[in-house]
Amino acid sequence: MTNGAQALIATLVGSNVRVCFANPGTSEMHFVAALDSVPQMRGVLCLFEGVVTGAADGYARIAGRPAATLLHLGPGLSNGLANLHNARRAHVPVVNVIGDHATYHKKYDAPLESDIEPLTDWTHGWTRRTDCGADVGRDAAEAVAASMASPARVANVILPADISWDDGAEPAGQVDPVPAAAPDPGAVAEIAAVLRSGEPVALLIGGPAAAAVRALEATDRIAAATGARVLVETFPARLVRGAGVPAVDRLGYLAEQAAFQLDGIKHLIVAGTRSPVSFFAYPGKPSDLVPEGAVVHNLAGLETDVVAALEDVAQLVAPGVAPRPAPAATPELPSGDLTPQNWVQVIGALLPHDAIISDESNTSGLLLPAATAGSPRHDVLTLTGGAIGQGLPVALGAAIAAPDRPVIALQADGSAAYTISALWTMAREQANVTTVLINNSSYAILRLELSRVGADGGGPKANDLLDLSRPNMDFAKIAEGFGVPATVAKTCEELAEQFRAALAEPGPHLIDARIPTLF
Amino acid sequence: MTNGAQALIATLVGSNVRVCFANPGTSEMHFVAALDSVPQMRGVLCLFEGVVTGAADGYARIAGRPAATLLHLGPGLSNGLANLHNARRAHVPVVNVIGDHATYHKKYDAPLESDIEPLTDWTHGWTRRTDCGADVGRDAAEAVAASMASPARVANVILPADISWDDGAEPAGQVDPVPAAAPDPGAVAEIAAVLRSGEPVALLIGGPAAAAVRALEATDRIAAATGARVLVETFPARLVRGAGVPAVDRLGYLAEQAAFQLDGIKHLIVAGTRSPVSFFAYPGKPSDLVPEGAVVHNLAGLETDVVAALEDVAQLVAPGVAPRPAPAATPELPSGDLTPQNWVQVIGALLPHDAIISDESNTSGLLLPAATAGSPRHDVLTLTGGAIGQGLPVALGAAIAAPDRPVIALQADGSAAYTISALWTMAREQANVTTVLINNSSYAILRLELSRVGADGGGPKANDLLDLSRPNMDFAKIAEGFGVPATVAKTCEELAEQFRAALAEPGPHLIDARIPTLF
Repeated sequence: MTNGAQALIATLVGSNVRVCFANPGTSEMHFVAALDSVPQMRGVLCLFEGVVTGAADGYARIAGRPAATLLHLGPGLSNGLANLHNARRAHVPVVNVIGDHATYHKKYDAPLESDIEPLTDWTHGWTRRTDCGADVGRDAAEAVAASMASPARVANVILPADISWDDGAEPAGQVDPVPAAAPDPGAVAEIAAVLRSGEPVALLIGGPAAAAVRALEATDRIAAATGARVLVETFPARLVRGAGVPAVDRLGYLAEQAAFQLDGIKHLIVAGTRSPVSFFAYPGKPSDLVPEGAVVHNLAGLETDVVAALEDVAQLVAPGVAPRPAPAATPELPSGDLTPQNWVQVIGALLPHDAIISDESNTSGLLLPAATAGSPRHDVLTLTGGAIGQGLPVALGAAIAAPDRPVIALQADGSAAYTISALWTMAREQANVTTVLINNSSYAILRLELSRVGADGGGPKANDLLDLSRPNMDFAKIAEGFGVPATVAKTCEELAEQFRAALAEPGPHLIDARIPTLF
Repeated sequence: MTNGAQALIATLVGSNVRVCFANPGTSEMHFVAALDSVPQMRGVLCLFEGVVTGAADGYARIAGRPAATLLHLGPGLSNGLANLHNARRAHVPVVNVIGDHATYHKKYDAPLESDIEPLTDWTHGWTRRTDCGADVGRDAAEAVAASMASPARVANVILPADISWDDGAEPAGQVDPVPAAAPDPGAVAEIAAVLRSGEPVALLIGGPAAAAVRALEATDRIAAATGARVLVETFPARLVRGAGVPAVDRLGYLAEQAAFQLDGIKHLIVAGTRSPVSFFAYPGKPSDLVPEGAVVHNLAGLETDVVAALEDVAQLVAPGVAPRPAPAATPELPSGDLTPQNWVQVIGALLPHDAIISDESNTSGLLLPAATAGSPRHDVLTLTGGAIGQGLPVALGAAIAAPDRPVIALQADGSAAYTISALWTMAREQANVTTVLINNSSYAILRLELSRVGADGGGPKANDLLDLSRPNMDFAKIAEGFGVPATVAKTCEELAEQFRAALAEPGPHLIDARIPTLF
């Protein structure tokens, strides 16, 4: 006999979902028990749902396919929503299994009862409530396919406890996701004409194009042949870069930076991303970052094979033109006390081959791209949706997806506190994550923003609310408390030595790097 | 000139809201700046929104009036939802101020953009989006009044950034909340008749009745005069108990316990709570905990002055009958290694006068009520909504509300990991919270539930997902990392000595108590 939970897990495995990040409760106990009947599914316990969903996001960014999550009713899902928001903005596949009360129990409005659908709807994804045991397999298979549509998305299966425990269910076969559309030849021709117009053009790419060397090469060929400026969206889900890959700058986070990068253009071509807007509104400043008078042209949205579209354009405007891979060139190892300027050089100098960087360094990482531009080829995973607390969970998930690759979490202090228990799961799973915790004892970005929004800041109460130095957090102790070996670095020499040592030893490590704030 | 943020904060202060638990972002910078212009508002920085909302809940349970929260857009609110769920089930007032993008910026769908209303609706509370600067004061005053209605609730003000920064706003005067209705004389008479019927009766009280000595005395007089069994709801928001207060058992969490407590009754009278239901569904077991054939009578819901209603009933059925206060009687101090049985005796023996217990000890606390029944009078704050991660934030909020009372957080390990950064705010605010961290290295309650739901447990993968010992968490180190002095206790003598010392010294302390699991 197969119960609903067993059929669900068997279906997920049959659809190539092999990892389930879980924080279960009573209503999920049959799912937990069923894990022993399906050996191909790996359960990874996390101590908070924000870690669960962030890890699923990181896993998907590297594996290119979804992990499952296991969440406990509405409140469990609610704890995971912020990182699902980031996953939604990253356009990655995630399959949430959300346990619910037994169908007949909901009407009693027991303490943990809540409406789950408004929360799943908030993920802008796909949702199915399984209300009949016979449908469990079908719903799970369709959820996986829905998550892998173009664009990829969050898929939610709400699983009542009695559906989970009732016998008589059957696994379902894999359902093929809707593939990305082929590029539109008309759009390709139009973009080629814009590029040949002789007017100043910028090409802004994102989504899968940022993660594909082929796309970056096509884009660079276009730039070489036409003089177009090329930029990557500000917060790509996954950006491949480093030696051997054409270098592309990211559009700046600050509107002032973006305005500088786009200054003077007459045409903005977007591919795999949207026309750029300011992250926040600022009094008297425009929200739309497209320079006045410039025309926006859409080459391909996320429903389209954007890599192929860029290659098609390159074929038209840059036949025979070769891409220009970035040369291998790493910074000198700096020395002396750590500063916002020199810590990134340590990373750039020592970054190992094929690394994955989970970057939630925020203001402290402003100089990171330059310092790592010629480092060995690596992937960078960024804070796509702006909901902080993503960096450590994403690093965990990436390490589960690619156990043989070194994962580097560059993590700001304020954001780290959101989902700090990710360290425990790193220890439990012996994930190869080296966390460099940039400990500047402040919400530095908010110090900057306080002045940028024109708030009459500077008052003692206002500044106190942006201050993390009362008391300073000792992240080395916190990490050790969660089972992760940790050290403290105050100089470049210490950071370099500890970073090398951490990379040389399997399993997670944390370096509590005491770095003054830029602001 | 007064901007929207200043008018909002001035209105809150004028409505007697004096504390704002905050985790701000860029869109809230003018609110942060405005704190310096309204000295009566205290800003309390928390490192995660689940701490913000849980602290507001704990504050309200003790202060009897709301704190404000400051949350950053939809994702910030989403992080606070689980503890708002608990606050909703606790029926306490909370006023959320949720910053949003500037009104004109929303259409750009910037990375942090999301629909906020589906999330505020999920709190089952009151929501107002302020879309005009002239309305800021009115909306804030109405929010406070809405939060303090009968029953109290979560009130949400969505504050766009431009409303916050635009000048020309004015504070508004206090709005009186709708008071609780007077008891219905017909219901009082009916209940009196039931109590005099001679048939077996149980009286289940909750809400404000559990927090009021007057209500407990009235209830005890009813019991003394009529032989009715008296019980408090399973998870009261605030229960006053100990020496000098009539002792009332709580309805058991496990359906089996509840069935035993209600066995044989013909009438169940409910006052300030609802007819009891099972926390979860279990295969083959009823969800409704009312014994078959028993009739449920509603004396007073939360819209009514339930304390007065109980006093009115007592006046009818127990005139001249005196309440029976619990005698002062504390356990002997036990000795030897800590066990699930003896740690509660240490607490019972040493509980100081007028303590507040924030109880998220879960399975480890099953024997706590008996051990503290004759301890000095104290308040117990429980996990009303079942969403774990509440205990430390609630303790923090209670300590802010009552700085002169000793707050004891009895905190299970698994749940502690959810909102562990509450410790940092305790250190920052020098909150008088003594946390006894019951570290049993497992989700013990789920071990129990795995068998109770009849899951074919016992498989190694299933049990591994309930195990927190790989690695063990060292909460003393974690606490020190967050700035809270901490010790480790393995014996009763150590726990007693450390507990005494912690209570004797101002500010927060954590005792990492290594106690084997019951299950």
